[in-house]
Amino acid sequence: MSIRIGIYGYGNLGRGVEQAIRKNKDTELAAVFSRRDPSTVKIATEGVPVVAADKVSEYKDKIDVMIICGGSATDLPVMTPALVRDFNVIDSFDTHANIPTHFANVDKAAKEAGNVGVISVGWDPGMFSLARLYSNCILTEGEDYTFWGKGVSQGHSDAVRRIEGVADARQYTVPVPEALEAVRAGKNPKLTTREKHTRVCYVVAEEGADKARIENEIKTMPNYFSDYDTTVNFITAEEMKRDHSGLPHGGFVIRSGKTGANDEHNHIIEYSLKLDSNPEFTASVLVAFARAAVRLNKEGVSGCKTVFDIAPAYLSAQSHDEIIAHML
Amino acid sequence: MSIRIGIYGYGNLGRGVEQAIRKNKDTELAAVFSRRDPSTVKIATEGVPVVAADKVSEYKDKIDVMIICGGSATDLPVMTPALVRDFNVIDSFDTHANIPTHFANVDKAAKEAGNVGVISVGWDPGMFSLARLYSNCILTEGEDYTFWGKGVSQGHSDAVRRIEGVADARQYTVPVPEALEAVRAGKNPKLTTREKHTRVCYVVAEEGADKARIENEIKTMPNYFSDYDTTVNFITAEEMKRDHSGLPHGGFVIRSGKTGANDEHNHIIEYSLKLDSNPEFTASVLVAFARAAVRLNKEGVSGCKTVFDIAPAYLSAQSHDEIIAHML
Repeated sequence: MSIRIGIYGYGNLGRGVEQAIRKNKDTELAAVFSRRDPSTVKIATEGVPVVAADKVSEYKDKIDVMIICGGSATDLPVMTPALVRDFNVIDSFDTHANIPTHFANVDKAAKEAGNVGVISVGWDPGMFSLARLYSNCILTEGEDYTFWGKGVSQGHSDAVRRIEGVADARQYTVPVPEALEAVRAGKNPKLTTREKHTRVCYVVAEEGADKARIENEIKTMPNYFSDYDTTVNFITAEEMKRDHSGLPHGGFVIRSGKTGANDEHNHIIEYSLKLDSNPEFTASVLVAFARAAVRLNKEGVSGCKTVFDIAPAYLSAQSHDEIIAHML
Repeated sequence: MSIRIGIYGYGNLGRGVEQAIRKNKDTELAAVFSRRDPSTVKIATEGVPVVAADKVSEYKDKIDVMIICGGSATDLPVMTPALVRDFNVIDSFDTHANIPTHFANVDKAAKEAGNVGVISVGWDPGMFSLARLYSNCILTEGEDYTFWGKGVSQGHSDAVRRIEGVADARQYTVPVPEALEAVRAGKNPKLTTREKHTRVCYVVAEEGADKARIENEIKTMPNYFSDYDTTVNFITAEEMKRDHSGLPHGGFVIRSGKTGANDEHNHIIEYSLKLDSNPEFTASVLVAFARAAVRLNKEGVSGCKTVFDIAPAYLSAQSHDEIIAHML
């Protein structure tokens, strides 16, 4: 029988999950839950109900795992501990500093309910975390480097959009090639924020706006831009739509470490992603971990889990015999 | 209390394990077992006994996990099922086609004894297998590519050494840069053996040997060289010692897959290694999985495991709280 998946929240990520379900033949979309009026939400899958979020508990026995597609700032800290009382759940909580608290809250609720809640699934946190953990366990002495991009940062794009006179904006985070090469060469450089990434903005200005002032406000914005070398390009609304409507992203996790009696041997472990669609890739990771959550729960497991706590075999639609024979 | 590790077999890999133990403060070397006369085996760690292999069972209660450093062709199929009757064990069995049989043999013996046996640990099989499995679970439709090198292939070096008139030889496997770039660009090329790797040989010829014949014998050798573009360089014994005494290796595991309603988005997941010392890196992976084997067995787990069957958290010397807070 297929794994019945619910999507809770239907934005970019929720739509990505809907597409990912279509790529996993052992899963099916059972329902989409939205805080909007369900009659206004049009989904891509025929015959699947869109349900008001406050009716979610009526689906307790119709869904094997709920993928929660909410924001980390205010949605997930509330939604995940609440929904895990009725469902196995997956979220992509990405506020790194608050993960221990979120873990504790979800763990308590999940154990009381006998369900599994997998938090912080995606690529960072998620696959990048796995790359960091595995490589640190192997090379116990060494340096870690994470580079993000080239990709669209939604938070930085929003920050530029809030500037007076800006009609639209897109911000790309770009790793500095020289820094990447120095790390790959095993030089273990100490890198400042400015040396690791540059920021490139594409801005549509409102008619008559002062472009010099906008550029200056961007480049001097604390936290977001002032510690970086930032380039600002003014473009037309048509160019924005034509050239910058995607949400590409990616990055590099590199560990450089030494072995040998006199630390004479250097080793580089690198994990990298080049993604045409950040939300669709994240959604694909979520669906793989949704499968794992259902399997673990069927074995009697409950509580909060992360990507660190799940044996990789649980993610695969293939049998153990198949993966041992063909992937090991 | 430290994890007490035994090393069974003291060649390049065994020596690498000895060094890796020094980099893992929660582990200690308890004993080295050798089929040679122990009085002739000099190890790097003071105060640790070298013991004849046939006395290994006397150490049943003095060792928490045995790392078996034997060859896959004839040693490990016998050693691993035998030793798992007395110890938790780790091996690096790498004959891909025979893994299911080896798994079944080790599983039966390990379950009967109540021990854990982790097989096929290292980087391929091992970390490369993990890269393949994770990326296939995320991108369910796509193409897999594995490139090896630049690195020394011991098997190919040995094959060249067996040619008449060859005093010494070293063979490097080298990925073809154009093939790597085409894969990274998401072009999903169909690549022949010749298009993926080249082979570069450094040969010390015996005095008076016919170099043209040697070169021809190498280049036309079936299975090993005839399907590849091979370069043969004749060098002196001094150059061999100076420039080719290391055992570097590495490689690339890449998955390229599509998502979206119309497969309009491409994604590239790449895992790569650049290793100065193949045996020392492999040994570092073995020690991390040795820690996991001991922990699993303490929880009551027994049987054969692979890298697919072990949650990553078990590999870390850090606590769960620490890895959640700092690595996720």
